[in-house]
Amino acid sequence: MLDLIAPLVITNRTKIVLLSLDGLGGLPRPETGRSELETARLPHLDALATTAACGLLRHVAPGITPGSGPGHLGLFGYDPVRYQVGRGVLEALGIEFPLRGGDIAARGNFCTVDRAGRITDRRAGRIATDVCVKLVDRLRAIRLPGVEVLVEPVKEHRFVLVLRGSGLSGRLSETDPQVLGQPPLAVEPVEPTAARTAELVNRFVEEARRLLADEPAANMVLLRGFDRLPELPRFPEVFKLRAAAIAAYPMYRGLAKLVGMDVLKTGGTFADELATLGEHWEAYDFFFVHYKDTDKAGEDGNFDAKVAALERFDTHVPDVQALGPDVLVITGDHATPSVLAAHGWQPVPVLVAGRYAGADPVREFSERACAGGTLGILPAQHLMPIMLANALRLNKFGA
Amino acid sequence: MLDLIAPLVITNRTKIVLLSLDGLGGLPRPETGRSELETARLPHLDALATTAACGLLRHVAPGITPGSGPGHLGLFGYDPVRYQVGRGVLEALGIEFPLRGGDIAARGNFCTVDRAGRITDRRAGRIATDVCVKLVDRLRAIRLPGVEVLVEPVKEHRFVLVLRGSGLSGRLSETDPQVLGQPPLAVEPVEPTAARTAELVNRFVEEARRLLADEPAANMVLLRGFDRLPELPRFPEVFKLRAAAIAAYPMYRGLAKLVGMDVLKTGGTFADELATLGEHWEAYDFFFVHYKDTDKAGEDGNFDAKVAALERFDTHVPDVQALGPDVLVITGDHATPSVLAAHGWQPVPVLVAGRYAGADPVREFSERACAGGTLGILPAQHLMPIMLANALRLNKFGA
Repeated sequence: MLDLIAPLVITNRTKIVLLSLDGLGGLPRPETGRSELETARLPHLDALATTAACGLLRHVAPGITPGSGPGHLGLFGYDPVRYQVGRGVLEALGIEFPLRGGDIAARGNFCTVDRAGRITDRRAGRIATDVCVKLVDRLRAIRLPGVEVLVEPVKEHRFVLVLRGSGLSGRLSETDPQVLGQPPLAVEPVEPTAARTAELVNRFVEEARRLLADEPAANMVLLRGFDRLPELPRFPEVFKLRAAAIAAYPMYRGLAKLVGMDVLKTGGTFADELATLGEHWEAYDFFFVHYKDTDKAGEDGNFDAKVAALERFDTHVPDVQALGPDVLVITGDHATPSVLAAHGWQPVPVLVAGRYAGADPVREFSERACAGGTLGILPAQHLMPIMLANALRLNKFGA
Repeated sequence: MLDLIAPLVITNRTKIVLLSLDGLGGLPRPETGRSELETARLPHLDALATTAACGLLRHVAPGITPGSGPGHLGLFGYDPVRYQVGRGVLEALGIEFPLRGGDIAARGNFCTVDRAGRITDRRAGRIATDVCVKLVDRLRAIRLPGVEVLVEPVKEHRFVLVLRGSGLSGRLSETDPQVLGQPPLAVEPVEPTAARTAELVNRFVEEARRLLADEPAANMVLLRGFDRLPELPRFPEVFKLRAAAIAAYPMYRGLAKLVGMDVLKTGGTFADELATLGEHWEAYDFFFVHYKDTDKAGEDGNFDAKVAALERFDTHVPDVQALGPDVLVITGDHATPSVLAAHGWQPVPVLVAGRYAGADPVREFSERACAGGTLGILPAQHLMPIMLANALRLNKFGA
């Protein structure tokens, strides 16, 4: 797909804004038969939908629930099955760790083992984050031959391990047996070229065991999700867009950085994000703006909070319109239905507003209404070409 | 896709008519919010839509604007990304030049260069076509070792160059630097096997420079879009259809011929085309009939003229129905919205009328209405199997 698009891309002075409501899609509350979007009062979104091309996005494949990585890569125009981001890399992106090409990242847990070395708590009683910070500092004393060892705290019992050096491989098995009563597993190379990396990681684990031995709870580590940075075509080059990401949460900043967008400094609220959008309006062609509240409410299973988050978002829509984007797209990275209290596989409403968006019958921004739109049910990675086309940034294909 | 279909095809005595309105799809006029199709009075098309299966066609991919080549190949059942037709080949088809397999075709421009050989006008002041004819005649004196040199005038400053011989390659760079003030570029082979062809083309260009030196305006040539005929599976064999094309414009006759359809001699109007259809009704199973006026009005940005072209087309629909086709399909090769005054990426309405077309909710032939049809939003190359199925010309797949 990128091979098809890239040669057609041209540049002009148009502006594209992609507003992504995290976990946008929902499900009807059984008592009313109406989803969060159908329950919320959304005058501005409904008005936009009336003039926009509408549809539903599928980020990975029918029935597949996207994680945050694939959900965003799809929105950014990448096939999320081809370009996979490992859990270790995602954890590192989530704390904005400056990963470099060739780095191997793993997700770490502090855990508790008994005297025989068998796991009794995979999360070390969810130690406080400040304890995690101290223990990570202790692990930083570990030296391994020929590689740099980088350890960073995340939250509670979680940390990130990064090995930096040449010739490393992320094709490693995990140390977490996922059950209690067994000792952590030794890391095995999944392919022969990973043998040296496996040896280094096993050495790290043994050093960690020694350094943590006197700890009451967090006396051992578990490592999983070994991976290296995927080699992604760079978004600004493929799409010839000066691209900026505005997101209050580090994970989404990390994902945008991964594809080469500029990540703008912003505050903690959506109003802050929109202020940042206005300040940088002239300097960029494409803005990815992330809204987190919808996902948070959905994950909490709080239907009313998600409705409120949607209504709050709706009040901000005119602020974005006032900037005069040529193409304004509103969608999400995946569904987080409140009745699931988790990410869902359901397709996610999308609207593409712009002068050439087309004659479209949809008059309401909801899952049910968007199913009848002219965008159809669309693999998410096709959204970028549609945005570019609406911005008149794509030449025609073939003579 | 063709590999899946071909073994399932059977023959019978049914007749299929594919009416293609060039540039059919449109966009709402901002003043009314209604597209050309929604503005036009189309009683016959709306009546057909009411009983037909309806949907929207995408010819290449979401957001991609199809050229005439990919637009038609999609309608004819070919994946237009897999089977690409170069600009030189299309230019040759546009004048119905009898290209042979192995021929290399290029699009030529007469241009003006100054004494230092730098381009001052890429189109030589758009010389009159009769001047072009004379200059092309002069270029026909050029002889190259081991190949036949064929030059044909097109229109104004445009001509076609064809090299015929064995072992030629179209993998060549272009001579047009696309800017003024620079000399034409030498042709370079894009792959090593094209080295000899590059040398021949460069020799042609130098001979042309010599032969045109005394011309006031058209004293040099530019060549681009080198390509050879794609090797396309033949339509009549793959689909087991005696297939005829009826088109007043040479480009569309050329495209139909490219896939192996018989091209019927016809007059310059749509009424002439329909007369031709009636005359050959018994001799063929499948008719591709091309209607040009919709595209012309759209390209001119003339909304009212496109509405009028649609209404004129509508009056002819009963003439086609009177012949009693088993399957009647009405669609287009791409959108040409008047508000864009160019080809567009928007999906194009399609209706498939026939005894087995199905229960379908659409009651109006328009972009908006067809979005809700049972064909959904369909890659154009899937239309051929749907036509065959409706003509009961496809066996079931699997036991």
